[in-house]
Amino acid sequence: MKTNPGRFFEDYRLGETIRHATPRTVTAGDVALYTALYGPRFAVQSSDAFAQAIGYPRSPLDDLLTFHVVFGKTVPDISLNAVANLGYAEGGFRRPVYPGETLSTVSEVIGLKESSNRQTGVVYVRSVGSDAAGETVLSYCRWVLVRKRDPQAAIAEEHVPSLAKVVDPQDLAGALPRLDASAYDLDLAGSPHRFGDYQRGERIDHVDGMTVEEAEHQIATRLFQNTAKVHFDNHAAKDTRFGRRLIYGGHVISLARALSFNGLANAFALAGINAGRHVAPLFSGDTVYAWSEVLDTADVGRDDVGLLRLRTVATKNQPCGAHPDRQGEGYDPAVILDLDYWAFMPK
Amino acid sequence: MKTNPGRFFEDYRLGETIRHATPRTVTAGDVALYTALYGPRFAVQSSDAFAQAIGYPRSPLDDLLTFHVVFGKTVPDISLNAVANLGYAEGGFRRPVYPGETLSTVSEVIGLKESSNRQTGVVYVRSVGSDAAGETVLSYCRWVLVRKRDPQAAIAEEHVPSLAKVVDPQDLAGALPRLDASAYDLDLAGSPHRFGDYQRGERIDHVDGMTVEEAEHQIATRLFQNTAKVHFDNHAAKDTRFGRRLIYGGHVISLARALSFNGLANAFALAGINAGRHVAPLFSGDTVYAWSEVLDTADVGRDDVGLLRLRTVATKNQPCGAHPDRQGEGYDPAVILDLDYWAFMPK
Amino acid sequence: MKTNPGRFFEDYRLGETIRHATPRTVTAGDVALYTALYGPRFAVQSSDAFAQAIGYPRSPLDDLLTFHVVFGKTVPDISLNAVANLGYAEGGFRRPVYPGETLSTVSEVIGLKESSNRQTGVVYVRSVGSDAAGETVLSYCRWVLVRKRDPQAAIAEEHVPSLAKVVDPQDLAGALPRLDASAYDLDLAGSPHRFGDYQRGERIDHVDGMTVEEAEHQIATRLFQNTAKVHFDNHAAKDTRFGRRLIYGGHVISLARALSFNGLANAFALAGINAGRHVAPLFSGDTVYAWSEVLDTADVGRDDVGLLRLRTVATKNQPCGAHPDRQGEGYDPAVILDLDYWAFMPK
Repeated sequence: MKTNPGRFFEDYRLGETIRHATPRTVTAGDVALYTALYGPRFAVQSSDAFAQAIGYPRSPLDDLLTFHVVFGKTVPDISLNAVANLGYAEGGFRRPVYPGETLSTVSEVIGLKESSNRQTGVVYVRSVGSDAAGETVLSYCRWVLVRKRDPQAAIAEEHVPSLAKVVDPQDLAGALPRLDASAYDLDLAGSPHRFGDYQRGERIDHVDGMTVEEAEHQIATRLFQNTAKVHFDNHAAKDTRFGRRLIYGGHVISLARALSFNGLANAFALAGINAGRHVAPLFSGDTVYAWSEVLDTADVGRDDVGLLRLRTVATKNQPCGAHPDRQGEGYDPAVILDLDYWAFMPK
Repeated sequence: MKTNPGRFFEDYRLGETIRHATPRTVTAGDVALYTALYGPRFAVQSSDAFAQAIGYPRSPLDDLLTFHVVFGKTVPDISLNAVANLGYAEGGFRRPVYPGETLSTVSEVIGLKESSNRQTGVVYVRSVGSDAAGETVLSYCRWVLVRKRDPQAAIAEEHVPSLAKVVDPQDLAGALPRLDASAYDLDLAGSPHRFGDYQRGERIDHVDGMTVEEAEHQIATRLFQNTAKVHFDNHAAKDTRFGRRLIYGGHVISLARALSFNGLANAFALAGINAGRHVAPLFSGDTVYAWSEVLDTADVGRDDVGLLRLRTVATKNQPCGAHPDRQGEGYDPAVILDLDYWAFMPK
Repeated sequence: MKTNPGRFFEDYRLGETIRHATPRTVTAGDVALYTALYGPRFAVQSSDAFAQAIGYPRSPLDDLLTFHVVFGKTVPDISLNAVANLGYAEGGFRRPVYPGETLSTVSEVIGLKESSNRQTGVVYVRSVGSDAAGETVLSYCRWVLVRKRDPQAAIAEEHVPSLAKVVDPQDLAGALPRLDASAYDLDLAGSPHRFGDYQRGERIDHVDGMTVEEAEHQIATRLFQNTAKVHFDNHAAKDTRFGRRLIYGGHVISLARALSFNGLANAFALAGINAGRHVAPLFSGDTVYAWSEVLDTADVGRDDVGLLRLRTVATKNQPCGAHPDRQGEGYDPAVILDLDYWAFMPK
């Protein structure tokens, strides 16, 4: 067999390391497409002049573009036969990434847990995105429910890893260069609100909505070289329970992040991902809205920036003025994403 | 409130200056997307080698890409609560813009006129797009009909500005570097017709048609960081009188300009915008056609280029062999755009 | 007439040379769009670091991006009034092309053959894509069925050229720089299979499927500055026998090539095109699948790479596990493309 059928649950071994294909040089072309697909307006990532004024050598990539490129490489080895993408934890953006850099990804299998019905199992991986010199730019854990080829196959060693509920903000503090917060122009950035203006418990409706088209999510998902066929093959999708293509969960994350500009314009860089859950699928024609809650604020000993712990909830076809949220054991039926992360904001 | 609800008519003050977010570094990625979204074929903007042969340092951006980027920034402050974009005047492209430059926009409120029913008012702004050094690259006036938050609110000072019906071509003459018209290769440019071959009153049907898809105009409008929700939120649009998303008027301008290549291939750079009107809305699935009339020709004392004053009319779902035009007080029902502008053409 | 109505069959002269508009500088922006539109994952074209490790100065363009740009220029002069694109032969990629290079195209009319009903005729051209210095980067022959303006018009001279059935692989051997095959990292490339692992007669189902949207093929076809109206004008298409827009045949070639990664990940560069036929049209909403057959292997005296002669067959709405193929005089009704080409693979 010269083609990749994808791995099944019994093909993974605890502790094994997988070097993923295909390394990818990110460019100004990717940045333009990212802007066109999601509409982010964070000034640091949009303007070299703005970025340079506060101490960057030039505009860095949107952190989620880095995330998607690093993530995309893992799909052929990790989630081609996945039933569901269950969660994220311990995500850390180690430094800004710039156009011209080459990213590649290695994953370590850090957990395996067979389902009680023996049809599937949960694979836990820690994926590390590196630059051409091998230095880490991003690492995160995710766990996915993967089919077994043979329900009877035995699993050599099982283990459920203990993952932090929240990334320690001190561990994220060094991810940005030293910045000149006094040169951060609030008019050009689009909001007068700095780190000190946000309070724990504050809720912000991001107001705007964005309708998603098939062409858009396909273009995005291919840009990230994410090959999961559920996003691309409508002929095969007709026979699934949804009857149509599923939109890559990361597409929702990027839409929610871009929408969050309206209320969080100065949360200009992601620092860490504490937890993330794709609560329900998104389909073409649906309109995405989002709201955020300030879960915490962290002063990490820098006089230029602080960290906000944010929880951004995205919905489909329901504006977020009422902050649709968890309900009992589950969620308001409109909720599709619940993401808990740290972001930098100027002081 | 940390989110931007948009300004209402009574929030504007005559003479006030608004510095818009978000500065934007334009790149080769934006150029590629612009090509892919509209299909322009003007050789100067397409080929560094062609541009250099006639005296440019490299290919400049399509002038309308510059226009859309400069325009997009004004939307959150000027037209978020606009009912209609009424017109343009006194537009001038001051110099070519190149990939790598950073653009930002400042608008001055030059006119305010409340409607007689006091529900709305017309806001006139002069928007100036500048480079990182603060030098103007483009300025234009536009006026929009904006809702009042409170119909009873008083307006401090009203004024209807007097705007030129036509930009003086002498004021535009210096917008291009000195070019070597003898090195302008007509085969590569796609047409044998130079400045002297066009006559006032001449009408040209641009023949080709272009059907627009939702994904295309959304991708374009986000690329320009234009945030007007009528272009993106189909869930909200269902309850409007159109029942669907409206396409950004600038999308029509760019389509018409790209179509105009067939007949005006050597009108390679825009110089000024005299007047512009979005006569009717365009929707996804519609096909855009265009025709142009030569309103005037201007020899501005350069031996390399002259200026054509062109009026380009775009229609939807109706080819333009019969030059559909004004009818009585209004327009042929197929007309969607009436744009009057100056363009450079080699002698 | 200042607009281009396209040439008709009687407008061509045997031996004439046509310099096509519009030269085009290809950039990292075009590369990003190509990735986003087709999803290729070949490591050499994706990663500067990977390319440099084996001896390239940086990542070259995907060869099909070069092909489409070179091809696009010929459309206004060759195929605007074409009824059908009949075939390709004698295609040779002469060297890698890099972002920043400017491509232009010249075609020579090498054959003319009027149809027996005198309504149409076949035009054979050899199109040569060159860099800014005039050096050839790609040449290929194609022949198209073109309408006559006047069925009675006489044809000065007819000739059916004799075209090679297969390009001699020795003539293609020099198209790549000398590479260090030992530095070719099979993990990062995505497959352990080198040149020696493929056998004549081997058949590979590429498994994955890709559904095509109107916005996608229009964005791609405009990127290539291909102006054939059948791809863009749905208003006019309603009155054709298909009743809708046709997708550019080159779009299918690129999709099939990208799908072929799954099974041919190390066939990283195209060398030549022996033959190609668009067997049936593709429409928006259709899903493309592909399979390949190894027609031949050629050792061309290089110790770094060999050449595989591949035949890639694409289908619509039918997976290729059963290798749908020719049937009697024609083809399995699902087949849309039959492409015979040479590709380099590391030893």
